[in-house]
Amino acid sequence: MVLQTLLLFSLLLFSTEAAVQDFCVGDLAAPESPAGYSCKPAAKVTVNDFVYSGLGAMGNTSNLIKAAVTPAFSAQFPGLNGLGLSIARLDLAPGGVIPMHTHPGGSEVLLVIQGTICAGFISSSANKVYFKNLNKGDIMVFPQGLLHFQINSGKGPSLAVVSFSSPSPGLQITDFALFANDLPTELVAATTFLDVAQIKKLKGVLGGTN
Amino acid sequence: MVLQTLLLFSLLLFSTEAAVQDFCVGDLAAPESPAGYSCKPAAKVTVNDFVYSGLGAMGNTSNLIKAAVTPAFSAQFPGLNGLGLSIARLDLAPGGVIPMHTHPGGSEVLLVIQGTICAGFISSSANKVYFKNLNKGDIMVFPQGLLHFQINSGKGPSLAVVSFSSPSPGLQITDFALFANDLPTELVAATTFLDVAQIKKLKGVLGGTN
Amino acid sequence: MVLQTLLLFSLLLFSTEAAVQDFCVGDLAAPESPAGYSCKPAAKVTVNDFVYSGLGAMGNTSNLIKAAVTPAFSAQFPGLNGLGLSIARLDLAPGGVIPMHTHPGGSEVLLVIQGTICAGFISSSANKVYFKNLNKGDIMVFPQGLLHFQINSGKGPSLAVVSFSSPSPGLQITDFALFANDLPTELVAATTFLDVAQIKKLKGVLGGTN
Amino acid sequence: MVLQTLLLFSLLLFSTEAAVQDFCVGDLAAPESPAGYSCKPAAKVTVNDFVYSGLGAMGNTSNLIKAAVTPAFSAQFPGLNGLGLSIARLDLAPGGVIPMHTHPGGSEVLLVIQGTICAGFISSSANKVYFKNLNKGDIMVFPQGLLHFQINSGKGPSLAVVSFSSPSPGLQITDFALFANDLPTELVAATTFLDVAQIKKLKGVLGGTN
Amino acid sequence: MVLQTLLLFSLLLFSTEAAVQDFCVGDLAAPESPAGYSCKPAAKVTVNDFVYSGLGAMGNTSNLIKAAVTPAFSAQFPGLNGLGLSIARLDLAPGGVIPMHTHPGGSEVLLVIQGTICAGFISSSANKVYFKNLNKGDIMVFPQGLLHFQINSGKGPSLAVVSFSSPSPGLQITDFALFANDLPTELVAATTFLDVAQIKKLKGVLGGTN
Amino acid sequence: MVLQTLLLFSLLLFSTEAAVQDFCVGDLAAPESPAGYSCKPAAKVTVNDFVYSGLGAMGNTSNLIKAAVTPAFSAQFPGLNGLGLSIARLDLAPGGVIPMHTHPGGSEVLLVIQGTICAGFISSSANKVYFKNLNKGDIMVFPQGLLHFQINSGKGPSLAVVSFSSPSPGLQITDFALFANDLPTELVAATTFLDVAQIKKLKGVLGGTN
Repeated sequence: MVLQTLLLFSLLLFSTEAAVQDFCVGDLAAPESPAGYSCKPAAKVTVNDFVYSGLGAMGNTSNLIKAAVTPAFSAQFPGLNGLGLSIARLDLAPGGVIPMHTHPGGSEVLLVIQGTICAGFISSSANKVYFKNLNKGDIMVFPQGLLHFQINSGKGPSLAVVSFSSPSPGLQITDFALFANDLPTELVAATTFLDVAQIKKLKGVLGGTN
Repeated sequence: MVLQTLLLFSLLLFSTEAAVQDFCVGDLAAPESPAGYSCKPAAKVTVNDFVYSGLGAMGNTSNLIKAAVTPAFSAQFPGLNGLGLSIARLDLAPGGVIPMHTHPGGSEVLLVIQGTICAGFISSSANKVYFKNLNKGDIMVFPQGLLHFQINSGKGPSLAVVSFSSPSPGLQITDFALFANDLPTELVAATTFLDVAQIKKLKGVLGGTN
Repeated sequence: MVLQTLLLFSLLLFSTEAAVQDFCVGDLAAPESPAGYSCKPAAKVTVNDFVYSGLGAMGNTSNLIKAAVTPAFSAQFPGLNGLGLSIARLDLAPGGVIPMHTHPGGSEVLLVIQGTICAGFISSSANKVYFKNLNKGDIMVFPQGLLHFQINSGKGPSLAVVSFSSPSPGLQITDFALFANDLPTELVAATTFLDVAQIKKLKGVLGGTN
Repeated sequence: MVLQTLLLFSLLLFSTEAAVQDFCVGDLAAPESPAGYSCKPAAKVTVNDFVYSGLGAMGNTSNLIKAAVTPAFSAQFPGLNGLGLSIARLDLAPGGVIPMHTHPGGSEVLLVIQGTICAGFISSSANKVYFKNLNKGDIMVFPQGLLHFQINSGKGPSLAVVSFSSPSPGLQITDFALFANDLPTELVAATTFLDVAQIKKLKGVLGGTN
Repeated sequence: MVLQTLLLFSLLLFSTEAAVQDFCVGDLAAPESPAGYSCKPAAKVTVNDFVYSGLGAMGNTSNLIKAAVTPAFSAQFPGLNGLGLSIARLDLAPGGVIPMHTHPGGSEVLLVIQGTICAGFISSSANKVYFKNLNKGDIMVFPQGLLHFQINSGKGPSLAVVSFSSPSPGLQITDFALFANDLPTELVAATTFLDVAQIKKLKGVLGGTN
Repeated sequence: MVLQTLLLFSLLLFSTEAAVQDFCVGDLAAPESPAGYSCKPAAKVTVNDFVYSGLGAMGNTSNLIKAAVTPAFSAQFPGLNGLGLSIARLDLAPGGVIPMHTHPGGSEVLLVIQGTICAGFISSSANKVYFKNLNKGDIMVFPQGLLHFQINSGKGPSLAVVSFSSPSPGLQITDFALFANDLPTELVAATTFLDVAQIKKLKGVLGGTN
C-alpha cells in the first residue's frame, strides 16, 4: 500500500516534469536562434546523441601545414548544443603548425597529449606576446578572441586536445581570412600594409582571387 | 498629516534602498574582477561620472594610416563600467584607413557621420567577405571577434561613430599584433606563411624586434 | 603540388565549418525565441543584411514634442539580431524634447552630433537626479531601466546618436504608457496620485480612453 | 491641431515598435531553443498568459513522503518563458519531507508561509552542511545545483513558497534518480557504495527495475 | 585498511576543493563589482548567512498609500549575492496601493497569499495594458523593466510575496522619481506634459524641491 | 619620416589601451566576487600564469575507489579565472570508479585518452538514464547539474580528460555529501529513505559523524 502510493507520487512527478528538458540536443534541420539550434524532441533523444566518436582518428596531416584540426563543435556534435562548451583535437606532424588564428566566440584550453608544442597568444594590450614550449601533460589557456598559434616543436608527431567555452566558438585563420577568398588585393594591401606581391603569392597558394 | 505620513514613507524607502546601486561607476584604482572594475562609492558619484567629453575633438590623423581611433571604453570613461556597451570615434583623413582588426570582446555598429567609408568584415565560415561602400547616415554591423576594416573611400575627410556591445571590447590590430612586438620573426613566418623579408620590413615600420 | 595540398586542406576546413555561423541575421517571419529572432539561412545572407540606411534621413519633428526617435533595433535592422547592441537617432527641433522614458532591456549611451542637449536620468537610490547640458561631442550614459530624458537646450536643431546594450532594448515613454491606452482613469489616478482632470487632459492629447 | 500631431506622433511610434516584444510567452507547440520556448505571437497574447492559478490549491500529500511539490515553471506557466525566474509551492503534511534533491539550472529561495520547516543544503566544499529550523516568515536560500532538503518539523501541516532563478530550473530527486529507473543495480552499487539489498529495496518502492 | 584509504581519499579531495566556493555571501563592507558584492570568506560563513527573518513581520501600512514593501534583496540579505534571485513582501491595508513603478534589473512574479489584488503592467509595444484581479493563490508575472502596479481590490488587508530574477532588481517608483527630489519643476513639466500646478502639488506631498 | 609617424601612432594606441585587460588572471589573495577572483595586475602577469603543469602526473589511485580526479579549476590554475572553462584529468585503475556526482556550476565533456570507460548520466525528466561504454577517442557530454558517473570498464588502467563550461564548476560527490560530514543520521534517513544501518556503515567508511 505504502509502496503503491509512493510509486504513484513518483509517476505524478514524472508527468509533471515531462515537458522539462535538462538538455537541448541540436536539431540541425530546424530553425537556429542566437542561442543555438532548436532542440530535438526529448522523446527521440538517445544516449547516442550525447556520444561522439569523431575525435578518435588522427586527422590527415599530409598537407602544407602538416597539421589537422578535428572539431567537435555543436555542428558536428549536436549534443553540445546550448551547453556552453566544445572540444577538438589537433594533430601536428613533425614540422606541423596551426597558423595564427582566433576563435571569435570563446576561450580555449589546450592539453598536450603527446609530443612538444610551442604555443602562444598575443594580447591586445601593448600587443604583448605570451608563448612557451609545452610538454606532455601541460595545459595553456588562450583568452577569448585573441590571436594565437601552435607549432610542433618536437621531432615526432604531437597531439593536443583543445576545449572551448562555447559549443560553437568559431575559427578564423588569419591567412585564410586574408588570402583564401575574393577580397580584392588592393583592399588587403590597404588594410594590412603587406606588399602586393606577397598578397598575390599567398592568394595563389590558398586559392584566393581578385 | 497625510503629507507627513507619505513623506515619512518615502524617507523610509529611501533608507531601505540606500545600499542599492543602479550603476557601478568604475574605480580604476580598486580591484578589478572578470565583470569589470570595482564600483566607486555611490556617495561620491556625480553627474560628471556619467558624462565624457573626450570624443569631441578630432583625433590626430597625421600619421601613416591617416586615421585615428578615439575610444570611450570603461578605461577612459568609467561610467560605462558594467553597463554592457561603449563607443568610439573614427577619424579618417583622405586616404585614411583603419587596418584589419578584431574586437575580442564585442560586436560593433558603425555609423557614418561624414564622408564615405568602405567597410567590411570576413566571416569564419568559408572566409566569406562582406564589404560595402557606406555613405553618410548608413550603419553597418560587424559581428563579434571577426576581422574587419574601414577605409576612407571619399575625397574629403570621413568621420564615423562606432558602438560596441561591451564596456571593454578590446582592439587587436592584426599588423600590430604580428609586427609591433618581440614575437620572433621565425615564429611569425611559421604561423603566417609571410616571407621573412616582408615580416622584417613591417617590423621595421611598426617598431617590432626579433 | 604543395599548393594543391594546402588548397585541399583549406577546402576541407571550409566544408567542416560550413554549418557554423558567426552571426544570426534575423528572419522576422520565423519563430522568435527569448534570445531573439531565428537565423536567416547563411546561404541567403548578403552584405546588405549587415547594412542599414534608415538613420540617414532626419526624423519628422513637426509634432508637439518637436522631436523624433528613429530606431535601428533588430526589428528594423535584423542584422543586429543576437549581437547585443543597437542604435537610434534623435532629432530635436528647437524646443524639442524626448519625454521621460525607460528602456526595459538595455543601457544607453548618447552622443551629441549637433546642437546642445540637456539630458538626465533618475536613479532609484534616493531618487537622485543626474542631469547636465551636453555639447557637441559629449557623451552621456543612462544605466539600464532608469527614467531619463533629453531636451534641446540650444537655439537651433539638435541631433544625437544613441546606442544600446541590446538589439531590442525596448522603449517605454511614461506619458504614453499612462495616457495613450485604455487603462481606466481611476487606476491611473490610484497608482500615480495625479488628479483626474490632469489624467483626462493628457488622455485626450495622447488618444487614451477610459 | 497640436493634439492631432502629437497623436500622430504616438501612432507612428506605435507602428515602429509593433514588432518589438517585451516578453516571450512560450508556445509549447513550437520549436524550443537553449534559451527556452518559441514566443507566442504578440497579437494572441492576453493578460491570462501572465496569470496562473495552479498554485492556489494544496497539493495532494496522501503519499509516502506526505508532501507535494506544485511547480509553476515555464512548462506549466509559459508566461515565465525567457524571464529568468519561476515559483512553486511545497505542501508538507505532518511528518512530510521533500527528499534530498537538486535543481540543475537555478538557485532557490524558500519562504515559510505556514508551520515550521527544517531545511538545509550541503556545500561541495568539504561537504559542509548548513541547516536550520525555519519558522513562519523566515526565508532561506539554496545555492544553485547543491543537494538540499526540507522536512516538516512542526506538528501541523506546513506550507512554503519557493522561487527559482530560472524559468525552468529542473528538479532531480536523488532517490528517484538512483532507484526509480532501469539503471542496473550493479551500476548503482558501484557508483554509490550502497548495499545491493538496500538498492533492491528502494527500487522496489520506487518502481525501478534491473 | 580499506576504510582508511577511502577516508584518506576524501580528505585529499577536501583539501583540493578547499578554495572553491559554491556561493558568495556578500560582504557589504568590501569592494562591490558589477557582478555584486565581494564574497565573505567561506570560513566565516554560517547557516545564518543563508537565512533571513526580515519578511516575517507585517510592514507598516499607516501611510498615505496604505501599503508597505519589505525587500529581501542582497543589500538586506547578503546570502543572495550572486545567486540571481531575490524576494520581498507586499502588505496592502484596505485601500492600499503600490504605485506605478519599475524594477530596472529584473522580472517579477507575484503570489497572492491573502486577500485580493488588482495587478497589471503596461507593455512598451503599443502601450498595451495587461491587468487582472488576482485571488489568493494566483500568480502573475511582470516582465523586466515595465511599468506595473498593485492595488488592494478587496475589503480586508492583502498580502503578497514577490520574487525577482536578480538579487538586486532595484525599485523605481515613478512618482518618487518625478516628485520626491530636486529635479526642477520646469524639467518635469517639459518631459511629462504635466501641468505645473500638478507637479508642485505632488512635489509638496512627496518632499520634492525646485 | 613615415615610419616615425606610424610608430608614433602605434605608441599612442598602446598607451590608450594600457589599462585594458584581455584576461583576468586570478589573484587568490584579493577579494572574490560572484564573477570570480580579482585580477592580478597586468604588469605582473607572465606566460607562466597561462600555463599549468599539474595535470601531467597520474593521480594516486591507491584508494578504495581506485581512481583520482585532478582538477585544473581556477583555484588551482588562476589563468582560467573569468574565461568560462576549466579542465581536469581522471585516472581510473582497473576496477576504478568516479562515484555518482554533480557539478553544480557547469556542463562537462569527457574524452577517453586510454582504456575503456562506462559513463552515464541521469536526466531529471522521468529520471531517464543515458549510459554507454566509451572507447579511446570517444567523447560524451554530461549536461549541467545532472548526476553522472564513470567506471573503468576495461581490464587495464583508463585515463580521461574532462572539460567544463565554467572555471569553477564545483564537484559534489553524492556519497561524500551524504555520509562524509556531520549531517545527523536521522536527517539522512528521512531525506533519502536509506536504512539507518546503511547510513551508519557508510558514515563509518567516509568519516562522517552524528
